[in-house]
This record gives sequence, structure tokens and C-alpha cells, in this order.
Amino acid sequence: MIVQKYKDMLQGKSVIRQLSEFATKRGSEIGYENVFDYSLGNPSVPTPRQFTDTMIRLLREKDPMELHGYSQSLGIPAVREKVAASLNKRFGMSYTGGHIFMTTGAAGAIAHAVRCVSEPGDEILTFAPYFPEYGPYINLTGATLKVVPADTEGFQINFEVFEEMLTRKVAAVLINTPNNPSGIVYSSETLQRLAGIMTKKAEEYGHDIFLISDEPYREIVFAGVESPYPSKFYDNTLSCYSFSKSLSLPGERIGYVAVNPACTDAEFITAMCSQISRGTGHNCPPSIIQLAVAQVLDLTADLSVYERNMNMLYEELTKLGFSCVKPGGTFYIFPKALEEDAVAFCEKAKKYDLVVVPSNTFGVNGYVRLAYCIDTEKVERSLEAFRKFVKNEY
Amino acid sequence: MIVQKYKDMLQGKSVIRQLSEFATKRGSEIGYENVFDYSLGNPSVPTPRQFTDTMIRLLREKDPMELHGYSQSLGIPAVREKVAASLNKRFGMSYTGGHIFMTTGAAGAIAHAVRCVSEPGDEILTFAPYFPEYGPYINLTGATLKVVPADTEGFQINFEVFEEMLTRKVAAVLINTPNNPSGIVYSSETLQRLAGIMTKKAEEYGHDIFLISDEPYREIVFAGVESPYPSKFYDNTLSCYSFSKSLSLPGERIGYVAVNPACTDAEFITAMCSQISRGTGHNCPPSIIQLAVAQVLDLTADLSVYERNMNMLYEELTKLGFSCVKPGGTFYIFPKALEEDAVAFCEKAKKYDLVVVPSNTFGVNGYVRLAYCIDTEKVERSLEAFRKFVKNEY
Repeated sequence: MIVQKYKDMLQGKSVIRQLSEFATKRGSEIGYENVFDYSLGNPSVPTPRQFTDTMIRLLREKDPMELHGYSQSLGIPAVREKVAASLNKRFGMSYTGGHIFMTTGAAGAIAHAVRCVSEPGDEILTFAPYFPEYGPYINLTGATLKVVPADTEGFQINFEVFEEMLTRKVAAVLINTPNNPSGIVYSSETLQRLAGIMTKKAEEYGHDIFLISDEPYREIVFAGVESPYPSKFYDNTLSCYSFSKSLSLPGERIGYVAVNPACTDAEFITAMCSQISRGTGHNCPPSIIQLAVAQVLDLTADLSVYERNMNMLYEELTKLGFSCVKPGGTFYIFPKALEEDAVAFCEKAKKYDLVVVPSNTFGVNGYVRLAYCIDTEKVERSLEAFRKFVKNEY
Repeated sequence: MIVQKYKDMLQGKSVIRQLSEFATKRGSEIGYENVFDYSLGNPSVPTPRQFTDTMIRLLREKDPMELHGYSQSLGIPAVREKVAASLNKRFGMSYTGGHIFMTTGAAGAIAHAVRCVSEPGDEILTFAPYFPEYGPYINLTGATLKVVPADTEGFQINFEVFEEMLTRKVAAVLINTPNNPSGIVYSSETLQRLAGIMTKKAEEYGHDIFLISDEPYREIVFAGVESPYPSKFYDNTLSCYSFSKSLSLPGERIGYVAVNPACTDAEFITAMCSQISRGTGHNCPPSIIQLAVAQVLDLTADLSVYERNMNMLYEELTKLGFSCVKPGGTFYIFPKALEEDAVAFCEKAKKYDLVVVPSNTFGVNGYVRLAYCIDTEKVERSLEAFRKFVKNEY
């Protein structure tokens, strides 16, 4: 019989998707260049030329049997070693290739990390505001996602409530820094305090509590901001990465899990992930993409446009009276709406062809998310629309 | 806590993998060209030149933002439409793009098809001899794989036992034709009878029973053999395909689920698969591979070597006294061992540098599998080793 659970899921339509569809429709009426579409978090800069060149070179020069042959389900050994070496150099870690499990993007990484450290019925904690896909990502593994309410002061962590919610049932804590949707980077102090509480509770309960660190925006950090590597603060950390944003390759589905070498059972975890992948049907990312990414590990697309856009928006929005924590990275900004009801606020904004996402979808009320991964020229033109919107409506 | 279930799985080591490792080790002693390694089912012919050319053209000519951008989680619409059109033309079906869900190979296809039509606790039936990965593929979804004993006459279906085992608890039946490991193709008569029994039982029980048809060897069918398309025989069929063998792209992980348009809830199933993929972390195969494969859908690698190798082996092995059902496709042959204990038989064969897999691993005793996806020249030389083996040992 058709499984009703999945059929029921078809009813819900994501708010972000609806807004994006509105923007496309409106674009067909007035020209898409005139719609200030801040709905979707898709990279807006091309992959570096070196990635394309490497792909072409592999296709031209490498024996196709080897190039397109089965990789081990953990990933290609030489690729895993290069990822480990790159992380060690950047963050002073001591990964070997054995600690790296190659995945189809961050979604694949989280699907395996969560299954490794939680049984159905366990709880996974995350912090508002949070990426709404965490709901289905976690809940469909059989574990339950619980959301710690936001620290609306600075979008770091609401530690009082966190400590209350970190009960015996919690198998893992899922963080996302730099953060979608707030753009905030967790400080060393935040990560230290988080680690301290998790260590204390794990001792109290007599079982491990894992940190699953989702880091697709790791490379998009703005001038003067320090973005500490979470795994440095807590041994039982599984870092989940995606090259989607850093290399502008969201469609190519490539990322990894990096297991802290000091983690419990560190020597088994990647091999366990490859057992899990037999059930998820994952079986490693494509060989050619693994091989090409390994050649450009320390490169990124030209990410400077995001900082330029952020500065422009931050300056103008605060000038217009928005209260806003300044983003430290990503391509999101998360100002407070000018009225309590963010949904109503976003609805009004549409009249000015401003498409922004109400924060309810991220687990907190009263804010809006702007995904400013769009052309700077368009950001600039949108400022006039914001001025009109605020002047006429508030 | 680390999940013990997956840690425990690390204990078991696949017999095929062990034999392959033996072959590699022995190869380092006497030269790999002198080891007759029939252990692994990896394609031995390169991908068609047109696939490589298409990849290079896409990389050179297509806007990288579009080429590497997010595809819908169901797959790229134009790709899905092309797959549908190709299947319609070949098999007289009436798929639309909406019936096609693009996956990371057949493993990804099965992971989604099974979750669509079975709840944890349900049973899935398959037929010996069977691909041993079906065990973890199915059991890790929460359903239970049950194996119908082999029809050792012709490796079609043991219908008497099948009918007994097709109880109320069975949600789906999983078939694999052309078959790994037997090389046998299910006849129209077999598929007709299978469909008849399933229809009758579904009516009796008042619930759907799905056919999941795993078809990675669909394109490797030998002269004079008719290989009927299973979905033609039974409406509630989900066809799972991989391009690994037909295009010699096992490392690139690309395939699909094709939902019979007359299937129950056919209009929802691919969308349900994309909901399931949020939990499995699948989120569609890489864009560039989807786009490239769509350009070469009706091509294959030069598969003729497999038939040449099969004929050579079949002739010599039967001459040497092996009883063997002649393969209709794939790159496997499945003769009866010359003694009851196939494990002992394969152990003895190793002394002649013949590496063949005992059938226990495929759910039936007393046979051996040869994966003859190796150079014809090597197959030829192996015949002498078989002659010596049989002469001296039996």
C-alpha cells in the first residue's frame, strides 16, 4: 500500500517556495529584473574557472574506466586524504582520510551523522532561528527534532532554556554557524559554553551527547569576523559540510562528514556511515565530482559580492529604522519586521515588489529573512523600494 | 551514543569482497594478468565517447550557474521527460516526465521505491538466487526481506512456494531480471504468472501489493533472447534503473524510478519519493550527470564483449561436465559446482588461480557465480585453468 505519511507531506507547501513562485509570476508581468526577489538561498556567482578546467581535464585525460568506476562507499581514498589535510591545515585538526566520509552534500552528511548517533525515539536539539528542512531531515530518521527558542539579543544561544531542554533523551545537538537565516556566526565564547554544558550533562547522564555541526556557509565570513571551527571545542563532533555555497555547485551534491579524531569510537564512525548508506541508497557521491573537487579544495567562488550586498542592506535598513544584528557571514540578513506580525509585514512588502520571507518558517516570530545572493545592482535598486515601503506603510 | 546496530554490521565481511581481495593479493605475487578474477561485477568496457563529449560540451558551453544549479529534488524536468519518451518508444508505455524520479543509481531507486510502498514491519519478497545487497537495502528501511527459494530447474520462479509466502504481510515483491547472479531473463510466461498471482492475492487481501523491478542489466541481453519489460505485465510496478552497466558509469551514480502510469496513486508517487529523499539525504543526482545522460539515453557502451565471453565460458564449462542454465543476459554465469559444497569447490579453484564466488551468498547452495566482465583474452586463458582444475580435482 502507498505509505500515507509521505502522501500527507505533499499537502504542506513551503512558504519560501510559495514566495519564490510569487516572484517568478510577478516577474513574468513586470520583468523579473524589477522584482526584488530575496526569497531563495541559491549562490549567485559562478563556480571558479579551475573547477570547470579540472572537470574537462579529467574527462580528456583520465582512463574512463577509472574515472567513472565505482568509488568505495566511503569515498575515494585520495579525495578523503586531501579533505583531511586541508582541514588540518586550516583548523589545526588531526584528521586522517579515515575520518572523512564523502556525501551528496550537507543533506547527505546530516542523514548519515544523525543515524550514526541516534536511535528512533531519541531527541535532537537545534536552536531557533533554524533552517526549516531540519524538521524532515531529522524526523524522517525516526528521531525527533526539538527547537530551543531563539536568543533574540544576538542570535547566539539561549543557554538557560537549552540547559533545561538538554534532558536524558537528547542524543545530539545540531548547530549551524554561520547561520541560515540570521547570518550570525557563533563566537568562541558561545561554543565554549555550549561544549561545557554538553560535557557536564553527558557525564551526568552517563552517555555521549554528540554535536552535529552543519557548516555549508563556513567559507562565507565577512571582514573582521572570527569564525571558530566548532569541532575544536568539543570532541564528540561530527562536522557536516557541503561545497554547494563555497564552490557554487549546489546541483552537484558534494560534501562530507568529518569525524573528530578524539570522538568516541572515531575509528568506526565513517565505516558505520557506509553501512547506513546501504539503507539510504546513498552509496557515495559521483566519482568525477569527488575527483574534481579534491583539486580545488582551497579555492572558492568569488564570494565578495555577498559582503558588498550585506553592507549595503545593513546600512540602509538600519537607517530606515529596522533593528538588525549585523551578519558575520552567509548571504542572509534577518532584520526585525516593523510590525509584530511578520507574515502581514511580508505581505505588504510584496506591493513594492519586495519578496522577503517571514521568520515563522525559521522558528521565531517577528523577523524577516533576506537572501541577498542576487546582483548588487539589484540590491541597490531595491533600497528605493524599501524606502517607499517604509514611508508609505509605517 | 553510537548506534550499535551499524557498528555490529562492520563485523560481517562480504564473501565477494574477500575473494576480490584474495585476487588482488595473489595478483601482486604472480601478476594480476595471471589471476582469473571472476569475483566482481564491474563493467569492463569504457563509457561511449558520446557521453564524454557531451560532458565536455556542457562544461564548455553552458552557463555554470545553470549547469551546476539546484535541480528539483525529483530531477531536472527536461531530463525526466526524455527518460519517459525513451521508455515509451522502447516498451510501448505511456510515461510522462511526472512518472520519473531521478536517483543516484539503482540503490537510490530501491531505497525510495521500498519506502513508498512499505511500512516498517511489512515483508518484501524476493527470489533466490538474489543480489545479496538486497538484505541491507530492504532491512534498513524497517521492512523485512524474505527470500523465496530458487527454482533450480531454470532459475525462473518457484511459484508453489511463492504463493505460500505471499501472505497478508507482504507489501511488495522485488524482482531482478536479467538476473544477478544467474544471468537468466524472466520469460513472458513467468511475468504473466507472477502478475496473475499477485493480482489474485491483492484482491483477496484487499490491499495493493507492489512489484519493484530492479533492472540494471536491462540493456545486456544476448542474441535471440526476448527480455520482456516487467511493468507491461502488472500495473502496480515501480521500475528501478541504473545507467551503471549500460553506460559503464558505476561511479557516477545515476538512475531512476519509473512509476507505471496505471499504478495506484501514480500521480503522487514521484512527489512522495522526493519527500522521502529529505530523510535519506538523497536530494537528486548531480545536475551535470543528469544532463549528460539525457543526451545519450539510447546509447550503450559496447556490450558485445559480455556475450562473447559468455558463449566461450558456457561452451567450455558444459563440455567439462558442468551443468549450467545458459544466461540470457548480464555478465554473470551460474554453473552448478562439481561437488555439493560450493564453498569447498571455490576454495579448491583458488589453487588454479580461478576466483569464483560460492552461491550461498546469493541464497542458494551448490552453485558458483562467475562475473565475466573481464577481457576476452583472459577468459580464453582461464579455460585451460578450468580444464586442469577439473581433471586434477574431480
